[in-house]
Amino acid sequence: MNDHLLQINRRKFLARSASWMALGAAALVLPKAHADEPTAPDNPMRVPGALPRPYGDRSPFIKSARVGGGGPGAPHGWGANTPNTFNSWTPLQDLHGIVTPSALHFERHHNGVPLIDPSRHRLMIHGLVKQPMIFTLDDLERLPAVSRLVFLECSGNSHDLWLPANPDFTVQDTHGLTSTSEWTGVRLSTLLEAAGAQRGASWMLAEGSDAAGMDRSVPLTDEVLNEAMICYGQNGEALRPEQGFPLRLLIPGYEGNINIKWLRRLKLGTAPFMTREETSKYTDLMPDGKAYQFSLVMEAKSVITSPSGQQQIHPGFHEIRGLAWSGRGRVTKAEVSVDGGRTWQAARLQEPVLPKCHTRFLLPWRWNGQETVLQSRCTDETGYVQPTRQELVKVRGTNSGYHYNAIQSWRVERDGRVRNIYA
Amino acid sequence: MNDHLLQINRRKFLARSASWMALGAAALVLPKAHADEPTAPDNPMRVPGALPRPYGDRSPFIKSARVGGGGPGAPHGWGANTPNTFNSWTPLQDLHGIVTPSALHFERHHNGVPLIDPSRHRLMIHGLVKQPMIFTLDDLERLPAVSRLVFLECSGNSHDLWLPANPDFTVQDTHGLTSTSEWTGVRLSTLLEAAGAQRGASWMLAEGSDAAGMDRSVPLTDEVLNEAMICYGQNGEALRPEQGFPLRLLIPGYEGNINIKWLRRLKLGTAPFMTREETSKYTDLMPDGKAYQFSLVMEAKSVITSPSGQQQIHPGFHEIRGLAWSGRGRVTKAEVSVDGGRTWQAARLQEPVLPKCHTRFLLPWRWNGQETVLQSRCTDETGYVQPTRQELVKVRGTNSGYHYNAIQSWRVERDGRVRNIYA
Repeated sequence: MNDHLLQINRRKFLARSASWMALGAAALVLPKAHADEPTAPDNPMRVPGALPRPYGDRSPFIKSARVGGGGPGAPHGWGANTPNTFNSWTPLQDLHGIVTPSALHFERHHNGVPLIDPSRHRLMIHGLVKQPMIFTLDDLERLPAVSRLVFLECSGNSHDLWLPANPDFTVQDTHGLTSTSEWTGVRLSTLLEAAGAQRGASWMLAEGSDAAGMDRSVPLTDEVLNEAMICYGQNGEALRPEQGFPLRLLIPGYEGNINIKWLRRLKLGTAPFMTREETSKYTDLMPDGKAYQFSLVMEAKSVITSPSGQQQIHPGFHEIRGLAWSGRGRVTKAEVSVDGGRTWQAARLQEPVLPKCHTRFLLPWRWNGQETVLQSRCTDETGYVQPTRQELVKVRGTNSGYHYNAIQSWRVERDGRVRNIYA
Repeated sequence: MNDHLLQINRRKFLARSASWMALGAAALVLPKAHADEPTAPDNPMRVPGALPRPYGDRSPFIKSARVGGGGPGAPHGWGANTPNTFNSWTPLQDLHGIVTPSALHFERHHNGVPLIDPSRHRLMIHGLVKQPMIFTLDDLERLPAVSRLVFLECSGNSHDLWLPANPDFTVQDTHGLTSTSEWTGVRLSTLLEAAGAQRGASWMLAEGSDAAGMDRSVPLTDEVLNEAMICYGQNGEALRPEQGFPLRLLIPGYEGNINIKWLRRLKLGTAPFMTREETSKYTDLMPDGKAYQFSLVMEAKSVITSPSGQQQIHPGFHEIRGLAWSGRGRVTKAEVSVDGGRTWQAARLQEPVLPKCHTRFLLPWRWNGQETVLQSRCTDETGYVQPTRQELVKVRGTNSGYHYNAIQSWRVERDGRVRNIYA
């Protein structure tokens, strides 16, 4: 914290402290802010507290929540008209650090969240293998384990930013289909070695046991063989149902949809399997009407989460905070502009900075009360720099629904309101 | 995975796969294991799934839980006879990776978990400061933030290992008073700079707003000033009530009790304040009847979490897994002995290996069915090596209730049962 900031804070707090000194300790008990909140004792030190619980929960005063909607682009609302193909967005504006609470991890599914009995669940490996094999969850948990903090991002994250700008979007609306967890499981390569992949096996079909039978083709590249995991753990405990309990595929850096949840089957072959989800869906329609297929890597992206859409700020000190990530490795730089992209400053990257993981960036800022535009851009270890929206649209047009990773612009208006704009 | 292991697994799976091949796909649906489990559809692919929830929860099939008891040494059980001074132990045997789910973080409190309205909560800084100050939660959240993955450990963790050996202890019983979270907050030094610590201020009283008025004296060393945080975030969201919602002190590497929860007050002074919790309690009684006071650092420690107490294993391949940590910095080495300490092998340390944070270690092992003793020991970046129980008791005697960090011994009996012993 620099001296200037300290002086500002000290002046502010002097005023407040002075009034507290006059009022005495009673000032510690203030009127309740909202009538719909739970009732806490006026003085918690005079009331014995509650017992802890075998499996805890958050404070009833904390209301942060995913918002949900039926399909990309659909209005939010838990009663949307296509309940079985559903997104829920992570409230990035409320979160700290890099770990997303499992209860707030974003979610996308195509026919609801199945209820699966783990003792009856099996993973089959077949196709071009020397020996088809079936694994129980116990089998998999006994094999050598790996854990890794990795972001996931739906390729449809920021889908609506391909469309005309909606000034009312929050960062949850624009970027909430990405989250980070510590995932634990067994390496895909361990299972393929056990089954004995045959010569020529270069693609793998992964299939979920949800009612959509979600399936995708996975190229068996060196990167996939080195990094892909069959996960049973998320943030220390079993996967959450919405993230694939009891088993999911995880390919760090690849679009969310290919990280098949409720995983039941891996089939090896010599070519992609051309499933519905990689032909009619999850391709990138280009300006000339052709479509890119198997654009699997999530390129570098960043966003300021505070201040962000729908928030209102006041003149004075703010710490600009955001997240940056890249499907190609580590974030090496996150820069912030407080003047609509004319000048840029390097933000602090919060340790640990891990490959293919959210990285928290922070930059102190003093708002002078004038209208301005806040932006962030990141660079990853390959040297790739997050593009402006103009640069992205120049190459990709606006036919696409997926893989939007342009610089996000938040306009701070004179009244302190923050709006989503294209700058 | 080495070739030998692969061969073993392939043989095992060949047999299983062969029987599956004969039975066909129907073999994927097996009878339910326990009558008290929820009912899942026989084939989840034929039933549309559920909607996700605004704030999620785990699968009803997952039952891992904290166990609780009234005071150290008391029998577990949520109805223990001193309900307002309570521990709950983290189920380390069930966990993966290094992040502890917040719902399973260990807990210790002295008069219950207070219910606090965050909008009415205040933090006061007073005593030897140029200007007493009062901070709201909003004030603190606006100041420059830091996040860090840090373990906490109750100094009474492994308390019962000072006593005669209980063969029935699980690792939750012996070591469950330690957990790791990603904590977010403001640096203590930021607040002390704002309030203007006076010359000579070398100790700080930290007081909680629970009904016990828990308070401890904190030495304002360089280490504390560099690292201590006033935290409002845990694993991405607000602190959980049992971990101090809405505010706690966090001094990475220091015993749990000093990381005051429900923090309401910091008072600077020139000497320790000699509170009840650092005089009659939380001191280390030595063999000569004198007591060490302010033994705050949690020294290096490790434990094998799998296989561990009350588990039963079968001959063949196992991955030995455990956790290692040190209050003095990074763990540099975790070694495992599968022969009661005669020989040691270096275990793999799972990245990231962070200072003052749990580190997961893993070692492949093949059990030959003979009785043996499993142990782990760790070394930290200061060169300190975790002691044997004999070495620890030689210096400390057995009067103490705190700071037990000796090597843990699990005996694997011929029937595969794992027992807590002193070796």
